[in-house]
Amino acid sequence: MQSEDRLEQELRFVVEIDRLKGVLRQSYLADGSRRENSAEHSWHVAMMAMVLAEHANEAVDRFRVIRMLMLHDLVEIDAGDTFAYDDTALAGKAAKERAAADRIFGLLPPDLGSELRALWDEFEIAETAEARFANALDRLMPMLHNVLTEGRAWRAHGVTADKVLSRNAVIGEGSEALWAYARRMIREAVGRGFLPAGPGSS
Amino acid sequence: MQSEDRLEQELRFVVEIDRLKGVLRQSYLADGSRRENSAEHSWHVAMMAMVLAEHANEAVDRFRVIRMLMLHDLVEIDAGDTFAYDDTALAGKAAKERAAADRIFGLLPPDLGSELRALWDEFEIAETAEARFANALDRLMPMLHNVLTEGRAWRAHGVTADKVLSRNAVIGEGSEALWAYARRMIREAVGRGFLPAGPGSS
Repeated sequence: MQSEDRLEQELRFVVEIDRLKGVLRQSYLADGSRRENSAEHSWHVAMMAMVLAEHANEAVDRFRVIRMLMLHDLVEIDAGDTFAYDDTALAGKAAKERAAADRIFGLLPPDLGSELRALWDEFEIAETAEARFANALDRLMPMLHNVLTEGRAWRAHGVTADKVLSRNAVIGEGSEALWAYARRMIREAVGRGFLPAGPGSS
Repeated sequence: MQSEDRLEQELRFVVEIDRLKGVLRQSYLADGSRRENSAEHSWHVAMMAMVLAEHANEAVDRFRVIRMLMLHDLVEIDAGDTFAYDDTALAGKAAKERAAADRIFGLLPPDLGSELRALWDEFEIAETAEARFANALDRLMPMLHNVLTEGRAWRAHGVTADKVLSRNAVIGEGSEALWAYARRMIREAVGRGFLPAGPGSS
């Protein structure tokens, strides 16, 4: 392939991914002004990796963590954002997202497309130290936003502390330190009254 | 410093930079629906670096390019976004942005703060191959958005092709290939009638 054709192909990908800025998540910005989109979220978790990597359970290659986080939500351009507590939507999620990955990474020249697809697969499978840590950050971020907005997304969806604890326990697989911090945040949220403890409590 | 204090300090930085999502740029999203914010822009140019690095004039360390692009606009949290064609605003920009960098990177533990500040300085000074390439991408992106929206930001500010050419010639210092592509885009924009050639033409 000529270099000029490659450039055209790469730029079509660059233009296509602009659409991630239009995918809205359930979480609100820290100032509560509006819901967050998946592009700015991807930037924020990648920045988080830049400063929190020292808390990973194992030494991690920051560059791989950051690349995974930058591209982990690209599939939402086709598949949409799935709320972490929506069990029905989560059921069909994997197949839709794989088809999206085929299409979106397929826009690139094959060598680049394969590189990015492999990083996306690695994030999804979550078996390497880098992927486990990247997934931990991706789970921690909405908890931070919820605590800063007094549980706005949690309250909107009737989420309880037992759900937050069970759904996010995977944080500990990437970082015990961050999971300890997250559990303290959950206890405080329950104490401050914006996160009900859940059906198991009285 | 105890690890827990470090974590608290790092998370204060993570929460603070959420504000970049509220800084609006002059450029519009590719679909024209709204103006872009600096957080999603930072994600987009970092993604651009991930797939276009092969077009840099010299071989570049992609990780350094990507980190520079992720943090290059953080100073706008205090200093605001300065439109590339606003000469009055550009005059006071450097001092305001340095003060912002002092405050924002100063939120981090000193070792991390110094790492990020050094990357920001490197981007601003634009003397390394990585910084020149990062700056080239940062200039190319708004041109893409302008072409996709038929010059929406250019028209809003009466920008002409001679200004676009002189202001963006630095792209060539990072990538001759991208500057050649950019010049073709400018010619096409003039040809399609949404970018006036400028005072020098008749």
